[in-house]
Amino acid sequence: MKENAMQRLNRIAKEKGPLLAGLDPQLDEIIPLYDFKIEEFQNENDFYAAYMYTYCKDYITSLSEEIGAIKINSAFFEAVGMEQVYWDIARFAKNKGLFVIGDLKRADIGNSSAQYAQGFLSADSPFDAITINPYFGTDCVKPFLDLAKENGKGVFVLVKTSNPSSKEIQDAILIDGKPVYELVAKMVRDWGDYTSNYDEDYNLVGAVIGATHPVQAKRLRQLMPHTFFLVPGYGAQGATAQDITVNFDMNGGGAIVNSSRGIMNAYKNSKWKNLFSKEKWYEASVAEAIRAKGELKDAIRYYLEQ
Amino acid sequence: MKENAMQRLNRIAKEKGPLLAGLDPQLDEIIPLYDFKIEEFQNENDFYAAYMYTYCKDYITSLSEEIGAIKINSAFFEAVGMEQVYWDIARFAKNKGLFVIGDLKRADIGNSSAQYAQGFLSADSPFDAITINPYFGTDCVKPFLDLAKENGKGVFVLVKTSNPSSKEIQDAILIDGKPVYELVAKMVRDWGDYTSNYDEDYNLVGAVIGATHPVQAKRLRQLMPHTFFLVPGYGAQGATAQDITVNFDMNGGGAIVNSSRGIMNAYKNSKWKNLFSKEKWYEASVAEAIRAKGELKDAIRYYLEQ
Repeated sequence: MKENAMQRLNRIAKEKGPLLAGLDPQLDEIIPLYDFKIEEFQNENDFYAAYMYTYCKDYITSLSEEIGAIKINSAFFEAVGMEQVYWDIARFAKNKGLFVIGDLKRADIGNSSAQYAQGFLSADSPFDAITINPYFGTDCVKPFLDLAKENGKGVFVLVKTSNPSSKEIQDAILIDGKPVYELVAKMVRDWGDYTSNYDEDYNLVGAVIGATHPVQAKRLRQLMPHTFFLVPGYGAQGATAQDITVNFDMNGGGAIVNSSRGIMNAYKNSKWKNLFSKEKWYEASVAEAIRAKGELKDAIRYYLEQ
Repeated sequence: MKENAMQRLNRIAKEKGPLLAGLDPQLDEIIPLYDFKIEEFQNENDFYAAYMYTYCKDYITSLSEEIGAIKINSAFFEAVGMEQVYWDIARFAKNKGLFVIGDLKRADIGNSSAQYAQGFLSADSPFDAITINPYFGTDCVKPFLDLAKENGKGVFVLVKTSNPSSKEIQDAILIDGKPVYELVAKMVRDWGDYTSNYDEDYNLVGAVIGATHPVQAKRLRQLMPHTFFLVPGYGAQGATAQDITVNFDMNGGGAIVNSSRGIMNAYKNSKWKNLFSKEKWYEASVAEAIRAKGELKDAIRYYLEQ
């Protein structure tokens, strides 16, 4: 039986460690790190695209030994009109052997969702999985599920997001006494069953569960035994290694933790900034990734031994 | 006092009629309508982009006399890697004097939302308003609100979407007996107040309210007196002109109805296909827009007279 995308990610997380490198590149923070000459480019767009592409390439290349998966956020590319660089970098990461997550958070009514699915989950797309928003409900998620299944890809549904205001809708209590995020968790389970052969430990429908909500995450882990968790919020957003442990299963699998700004901005971190020059920013990122991975592994091991 | 974006749209809808032209261009449906020669283009991408751009340009040009606003769905451009055409067409529509809505349905945590906001709501962007998803809550919506206010733009929040499965999360009943969409409506009202001078009939935060749910829409119109409604679902999705009337205020304002496939595919409609050749597909679109506008106006007038 062939692995589905989430089983593959589960294996990668066990082999390489439970840490995912997030890529949220901000052009204004990248420019001080390189020194390109504008006269060497055809135009200003190409000049700035070179900064973006080179930065992302260096990030991926340096981390690819330590990290098995990457999440690339489309917002940071769209903000500067660099959708082409987004795709080029996704392909670069794929060619480096990484599991590539397109962090898109897309959703639309059915015929429009089908368009997004076709764009991002086709067989020749570099994305192994994408993130989607559940607010529209099943008929808008189905086009993603169908194409993910057809092409051996995965889908991560936003269930309980890491930001403080996530409580407003997601934690609202329903008439049965349960919060909205549990209703969404149940829908995610149904969507997983829809795509599943029932002999999979993890089906191809995963969930985004913020690391900043360990109480809710513990409950969601129980509710969703066959759902792989993508866990943002560790590091820059304030969640600790201990906070993330409840997202894992009893074998230390079933989840992967994202760190974006923590790894990207490691060269500015007091831990590393005296050890690495600004020009070698990516070496600080690798050091921080190794440190974070160790911290997460220790916390998970301690949690499982209890 | 300067009009905000929604007041401007309200005025346009009164002057030109309560119909918005939706643009959801599907490349495979466009190709039979034109006859470009691949040898006249540098490469295949340019060849297909010419189809997409020409189709959108003809749609906008022909409709711009009859229609005051257009909604352009990013899914259909992203699906075929034509983000550049998306922006070019938005600029083309803006230059034609249309109110341009970027149908993006984006949302992310705060620092990523700030990126999307910067990309789509900056002063020099061609978009007068964009659609966003509320699932993350206030801290992820604020960056959109702040930039919209700063640059005289608007934001439409998905409240009750037109698709059948919208009932799953949006109609779920909360412990206070009210559905989730009413909670979201209240949030939209708060977000409107946050951006408002309180002397505006319509503030810059609008709502997407599916035409397919007239009972809910009637209630939402009462709950959100200062919220301009963008109403999809009329025509191809099954809502009638009568269904949409409840979205309007007592002056026949406060809302605009979207038709995408209804107008785009008018040349295939039995009403028009014997009157217009396939090559003049856009003339059928104009005829259908005029017909739909008349039908909507009549229905609204009849509703208000009762």
